[in-house]
Amino acid sequence: MLQSLGYGATGATTPLGLLRFERRDPGPKDVQIEILYCGVCHSDLHTVRNEWQNTIYPVVPGHEIVGRVTRVGSEVKRFKPGDMAGVGCMVDSCQHCASCAEGLEQYCENGFVGTYNGEEMHAGGMTFGGYASNIVVTEKFVLRIPDSLDPAAAAPLLCAGITTWSPLRHWKVGAGQKVGVVGLGGLGHMGIKLAHALGAHVVLFTTSPGKREDALRLGADDVVISRDAAQMAAHENSFDFILNTVAAPHSLDAFLVLLKREGTMTLVGAPAEPHPSPQVFNLIMKRRHLAGSLIGGILETQEMLDFCGEHGIVSDIEIIPIQQINEAYERMLKSDVKYRFVIDMASLKREAA
Amino acid sequence: MLQSLGYGATGATTPLGLLRFERRDPGPKDVQIEILYCGVCHSDLHTVRNEWQNTIYPVVPGHEIVGRVTRVGSEVKRFKPGDMAGVGCMVDSCQHCASCAEGLEQYCENGFVGTYNGEEMHAGGMTFGGYASNIVVTEKFVLRIPDSLDPAAAAPLLCAGITTWSPLRHWKVGAGQKVGVVGLGGLGHMGIKLAHALGAHVVLFTTSPGKREDALRLGADDVVISRDAAQMAAHENSFDFILNTVAAPHSLDAFLVLLKREGTMTLVGAPAEPHPSPQVFNLIMKRRHLAGSLIGGILETQEMLDFCGEHGIVSDIEIIPIQQINEAYERMLKSDVKYRFVIDMASLKREAA
Repeated sequence: MLQSLGYGATGATTPLGLLRFERRDPGPKDVQIEILYCGVCHSDLHTVRNEWQNTIYPVVPGHEIVGRVTRVGSEVKRFKPGDMAGVGCMVDSCQHCASCAEGLEQYCENGFVGTYNGEEMHAGGMTFGGYASNIVVTEKFVLRIPDSLDPAAAAPLLCAGITTWSPLRHWKVGAGQKVGVVGLGGLGHMGIKLAHALGAHVVLFTTSPGKREDALRLGADDVVISRDAAQMAAHENSFDFILNTVAAPHSLDAFLVLLKREGTMTLVGAPAEPHPSPQVFNLIMKRRHLAGSLIGGILETQEMLDFCGEHGIVSDIEIIPIQQINEAYERMLKSDVKYRFVIDMASLKREAA
Repeated sequence: MLQSLGYGATGATTPLGLLRFERRDPGPKDVQIEILYCGVCHSDLHTVRNEWQNTIYPVVPGHEIVGRVTRVGSEVKRFKPGDMAGVGCMVDSCQHCASCAEGLEQYCENGFVGTYNGEEMHAGGMTFGGYASNIVVTEKFVLRIPDSLDPAAAAPLLCAGITTWSPLRHWKVGAGQKVGVVGLGGLGHMGIKLAHALGAHVVLFTTSPGKREDALRLGADDVVISRDAAQMAAHENSFDFILNTVAAPHSLDAFLVLLKREGTMTLVGAPAEPHPSPQVFNLIMKRRHLAGSLIGGILETQEMLDFCGEHGIVSDIEIIPIQQINEAYERMLKSDVKYRFVIDMASLKREAA
């Protein structure tokens, strides 16, 4: 077995700390990666603290992984040692259902294997994520990271990037469209950048007037303070698409009424407590849609990375050493990050000594 | 002015009774119709009792109108005296917005004119509906009723028919698809007939085991008792489309989880109290859609009538004289009708004597 060093949790109320664990040795189809950077996603915190009631301990989180290929199996064709590679939220799926056949592994009918806290399909036991020295992943689920991108700032593309890219593409966002992004956090700031690069007129909705300048810098054409009823009313029936990244319970009606006839609002955040129930009337009167979207498939993740490579798009990040991860979680809870923490995994080497 | 005799209400708590009122004289673009039959829609009752808090009294309800053309204006081309004609939920719209230009007058950006309790665009005042001896409507909003259809049973097609037809067509329901219809009432029974005629595999969801035989007779391929968790679970992730006709608050999640990836559930009933809030998770995990739909445009109403003419589709009705309308309302509240009351307007002649 391959020895791995990482940061993980052994219970819901204990802080993250150093863990030594084993991964499977790379098989013929596997790629072994030395992890250089790993983004910090809110899902990491939910899982560490068992807020979704499904955590198996010990858990090593992290699913925004960028690193250097160190070893490849005999059947691996797309990667060789030395390549820069990425791993996102999934490391496997059944590969034979209709969704997998369409390249939509995130909707695998048999359930995809999460990068952490997932059921390992080869060595058994659970998967361990990217707050670690290395990872072994089947080639199909390994992404190419364009050379033009800063590898640390590219890491959040693997979750925050694809989670916003997939709905923007699925609902065909592009030039000539007015697109809303609700919330300016890790997901929202990527949503602005990507929707802007796709040519849409982008409006950020935020409750914080202080975020205005930043939103404009990121690519928003307009910023609307969603608590200001007059500002909101001025945009009624005008949006083609709204990407709602806010997981905290809030009024969906406030945004549904801003959609044009046949417009869609897509939710990418799942609140622990439900949103207030939307008024059916607001759906009926304009044949509007409320929908959801989950990360994205491997093919479209590569498409997104290549698009970001061409357009020079990365996440706005704050780099931290792994030793600051518990403090980073507390700051993330206060939205005190612009806009994603990324762990510099070189910091882990101090611990190995 | 044209003299009209009808049944209407003068307040929210008074029963419907005989009213004499005036309509505009037909102008060059108008069609005057002697009303033969008028269906009884739940909206009639809501409006009569001011349950939507927008009723202007006196109100004469009725928007499932079939009758004989008695007079046409000089510019009318498609109708002549003696033709069988229909009028649905709308009698006018702005005719210059984007929705009107696309033949989607029900989504008129400036608000369509309802057949009753709407603002009259010509003579001023309010519009009066089809529980009456006659009506005057601009040609554009008058429908042709196929000769092959029983005119009494065709009347409910003008609201119950088009309200179910429009979403079935918009979401492209057809052969090879598994389609659910929630609720077996006036709308639901038309939804079954139309979805079946469009070639879909149709499943009725009902809370009443006693409705099984009737649903199969109407064209359902299967009937699921929605309170039976095991029956429901057997259909998870299998529906392309679900048409939800139930206006009473109920769990939308119970049906959302039955949709396939990217499936849509469309609501055509608006509850007075909101439904319990749907779980965002159920939208996200399969990229599912929750949508709404409002009646249908004039062009698609004609398309639906012609389709019904070709396929011999009408509503299942119970004919009543106008004098039984208040009793019919009480029975409608108890869902004691299979599946639509239709008023035989000949009964009004007794009152005129």
